[in-house]
Amino acid sequence: MPPRRYAVGRADEATHPDSARATLSEFLSTFIFVFAAEGSVLALDKMYGREHTQGGAGLLLVALAHALSLFAAIASSFNVSGGHINPAVTFGTLVAGRVSLVRALYYWVAQLLGAVVASLLLRLATDGMRPIGFAVATGVGNLNALLMEIILTFGLVYTVFATAIDHKRGTLGTIAPLAIAFMVGANILVGGPFEGAAMNPARAFGPALVGWRWNNHWVYWLGPFIGAAIAGLIYEFGIIQPEVPVHTHHQPLAPEDY
Amino acid sequence: MPPRRYAVGRADEATHPDSARATLSEFLSTFIFVFAAEGSVLALDKMYGREHTQGGAGLLLVALAHALSLFAAIASSFNVSGGHINPAVTFGTLVAGRVSLVRALYYWVAQLLGAVVASLLLRLATDGMRPIGFAVATGVGNLNALLMEIILTFGLVYTVFATAIDHKRGTLGTIAPLAIAFMVGANILVGGPFEGAAMNPARAFGPALVGWRWNNHWVYWLGPFIGAAIAGLIYEFGIIQPEVPVHTHHQPLAPEDY
Amino acid sequence: MPPRRYAVGRADEATHPDSARATLSEFLSTFIFVFAAEGSVLALDKMYGREHTQGGAGLLLVALAHALSLFAAIASSFNVSGGHINPAVTFGTLVAGRVSLVRALYYWVAQLLGAVVASLLLRLATDGMRPIGFAVATGVGNLNALLMEIILTFGLVYTVFATAIDHKRGTLGTIAPLAIAFMVGANILVGGPFEGAAMNPARAFGPALVGWRWNNHWVYWLGPFIGAAIAGLIYEFGIIQPEVPVHTHHQPLAPEDY
Amino acid sequence: MPPRRYAVGRADEATHPDSARATLSEFLSTFIFVFAAEGSVLALDKMYGREHTQGGAGLLLVALAHALSLFAAIASSFNVSGGHINPAVTFGTLVAGRVSLVRALYYWVAQLLGAVVASLLLRLATDGMRPIGFAVATGVGNLNALLMEIILTFGLVYTVFATAIDHKRGTLGTIAPLAIAFMVGANILVGGPFEGAAMNPARAFGPALVGWRWNNHWVYWLGPFIGAAIAGLIYEFGIIQPEVPVHTHHQPLAPEDY
Repeated sequence: MPPRRYAVGRADEATHPDSARATLSEFLSTFIFVFAAEGSVLALDKMYGREHTQGGAGLLLVALAHALSLFAAIASSFNVSGGHINPAVTFGTLVAGRVSLVRALYYWVAQLLGAVVASLLLRLATDGMRPIGFAVATGVGNLNALLMEIILTFGLVYTVFATAIDHKRGTLGTIAPLAIAFMVGANILVGGPFEGAAMNPARAFGPALVGWRWNNHWVYWLGPFIGAAIAGLIYEFGIIQPEVPVHTHHQPLAPEDY
Repeated sequence: MPPRRYAVGRADEATHPDSARATLSEFLSTFIFVFAAEGSVLALDKMYGREHTQGGAGLLLVALAHALSLFAAIASSFNVSGGHINPAVTFGTLVAGRVSLVRALYYWVAQLLGAVVASLLLRLATDGMRPIGFAVATGVGNLNALLMEIILTFGLVYTVFATAIDHKRGTLGTIAPLAIAFMVGANILVGGPFEGAAMNPARAFGPALVGWRWNNHWVYWLGPFIGAAIAGLIYEFGIIQPEVPVHTHHQPLAPEDY
Repeated sequence: MPPRRYAVGRADEATHPDSARATLSEFLSTFIFVFAAEGSVLALDKMYGREHTQGGAGLLLVALAHALSLFAAIASSFNVSGGHINPAVTFGTLVAGRVSLVRALYYWVAQLLGAVVASLLLRLATDGMRPIGFAVATGVGNLNALLMEIILTFGLVYTVFATAIDHKRGTLGTIAPLAIAFMVGANILVGGPFEGAAMNPARAFGPALVGWRWNNHWVYWLGPFIGAAIAGLIYEFGIIQPEVPVHTHHQPLAPEDY
Repeated sequence: MPPRRYAVGRADEATHPDSARATLSEFLSTFIFVFAAEGSVLALDKMYGREHTQGGAGLLLVALAHALSLFAAIASSFNVSGGHINPAVTFGTLVAGRVSLVRALYYWVAQLLGAVVASLLLRLATDGMRPIGFAVATGVGNLNALLMEIILTFGLVYTVFATAIDHKRGTLGTIAPLAIAFMVGANILVGGPFEGAAMNPARAFGPALVGWRWNNHWVYWLGPFIGAAIAGLIYEFGIIQPEVPVHTHHQPLAPEDY
């Protein structure tokens, strides 16, 4: 059982202005990210129709739309909410004891709401195009897709812990939003043709609800949550020194000290 | 009515050397950005002719030309003028009370002039190719295009406020120009096939004037200004704490403090 | 013979918790990198089959998958292990006397193991697709390929020394993981069609073992090790001032001081 | 006549170890950059043959190979030599009085030599492929090409002055190598189909000599030198305050101070 560094259900958390601002920030950043990410899929659809969207240039386009917008979204909320933009990231930090359950619940609602509003406005702005979201590709097994989501999300959440949570006091914190977003971009280039590579239940849920496509939807919740939990636990108890207080053990090891 | 943090029409602003340098910086940076951005559209035209420019690789090429050059342009004027390079960004900061009207007027003239000179020199360097600029795509309604411009510019100006204006004292300021420029790149991958995704009236105006193409031109002024105003007001009064003085409330919340 | 700044075979190094954490960090970061890098090759395979994977868009996709994921992997282990993720980088620092032989052995095992586990899980997640790895292209001589690997790895390890080892105390350290990863991305765009451009024996070994393809495998060990050694020696003795103690000579020369 | 901030021809400059290290650094960084940049052109050639290299994906590939490798090359020499990697950049700083003539001569020799050695080794590693370099495209006038080179290099050198020379003490210096390299990448997406977009006489000279192709070669010297001189003079006397001593006027203007 991980140590809970922050008390669960503190009475003031629900009404504290910092909490409200952080939740608003998660909502808006997730909105901006999902609008660009799902919007790039519809842009391909607009250019080619559904049949031809999955070529190399199309995959590159979608991966870069995710990476570039996620970078801006994380940076925009980094100092306000921690820049989660993703229920799986919030789950990983919850499992590692770095966020309270109340705060996690707030974030989850904000993230899902942001994704739904983005999908709705996207439908409106494109004159009714139905969001596409994620599905397991033909010829790929559900368990293979689940494993892919687990591994890809593991890489994402491990990067979050290593760059944004553990070492943020050093210069590494400066590039943390970029490292996280680029990890997502690279992973889409891997998982895209197999199962879409969501790594983010909110990213999957918004288009699924507004486009009403629920095929294999559970894969995009279970996979990311498992991958995030593994990454959070391994990093928290394998890499960070448990015996040293959180606020003083962050002196980075200089590479020449090894 | 937002608080005006800086007096409007200060007598010395018109002649202050800082003001002149900032205005010159906006002019030159907008020139460099628009030359590269519109130039990439003409480069596609040169390679393929007008009919084939809108495939996935072409869209990616145009989006990256915008993102990469805008990053350099913002970075080049960031510490001199604030790195607006965009009348909508200036409007958002004006609405939020963070720039005076006189300063905004200077910037607008400089930005429009920079875009026009870039378009003229582009025409000269390409031996007379007519700039293309922006238009709503066939089959897309004007109001859909307007909504798209509003939302895309909202994402852009929200990123400006969150990374360049609010948190610039932290390490976030270091990557602000990159986050803003990458947000623009991602948004072009969304709005490109629908209405071009200008998010910037100067970017649209220069090629429109020099190429003399005015179809739906109002969309590229009204949309960005509405989106920028919404982003400026939401960020200024929803995320930034209003009761705390501007110069001391910027201590970023560390992610582990939530 | 280079000076050994750190004693070889210190008794406590094998059991020191920092050493264990650094080794675990190398293992996990190499796992994340190789999964994304080799995975992008299989993603192309899934989309097009083996025959059509080597076009411009495909090469771009593979190069960006490498660059983006390597950036995240280096950033994730930068302050823990130095962010090698590559036996050739470890060899270059060993030759330059900046890492002990014991530490290097630990890293090599961790890197190779991470690459093998990534290739195994990739095979599992793709329902049995056989990893492809590297081979010298038809019509390219083995010695040409070897020279290409030497030069490309020279560029990579030179960047490691110049940005991560020598100048990490200045602001340059902030962008070192990005510079190193982008150098790899650029080099893949060069060497890709000729011999794959591994620059990293672990990156080559994992897929070779799991996919059981050993054609010209020696090229991907010998080339990177030679290139890394040359870069380490040239940088250590040509650029860094030998007569000044390591811990005080890092004041960067400001560009205007020349 | 610009003020000479550093005496021309200081006797000790020719033998000072800092000078030697800076020159070596320019040589090696230019070598790494030109090998990747020209190598990406040959990689396209290898994949498609000469006829099909100029499509959108090919142009994107070449532009990114330049941008990514130039970023690493500038970062690698930034704190040692100032990270010029380009005779036009050196000329711009010379015209602005920020580098001595002796230092400039050293850099020029190193840059040209690095480009030639890179082209030679590239020919060797590709089993004799003839470097391609730059030429004005069919249907483009020489004066149009010259104007294009002038404007593109102006944007590049303006970015160098604004991010690396003027504001390097602020956080902007951290991202200066990225801004400069991305500006080059964007500009290639503009000028590529018209005249190749060298913006760098060394980049053009190495492949021209080794591939023995001299068509319109003067364009790639005259254009960059003119553009660099204009940028250096405008920035030095238009943006930087002349009356304030160099070493104290760099306090950046915070965006909210306008």
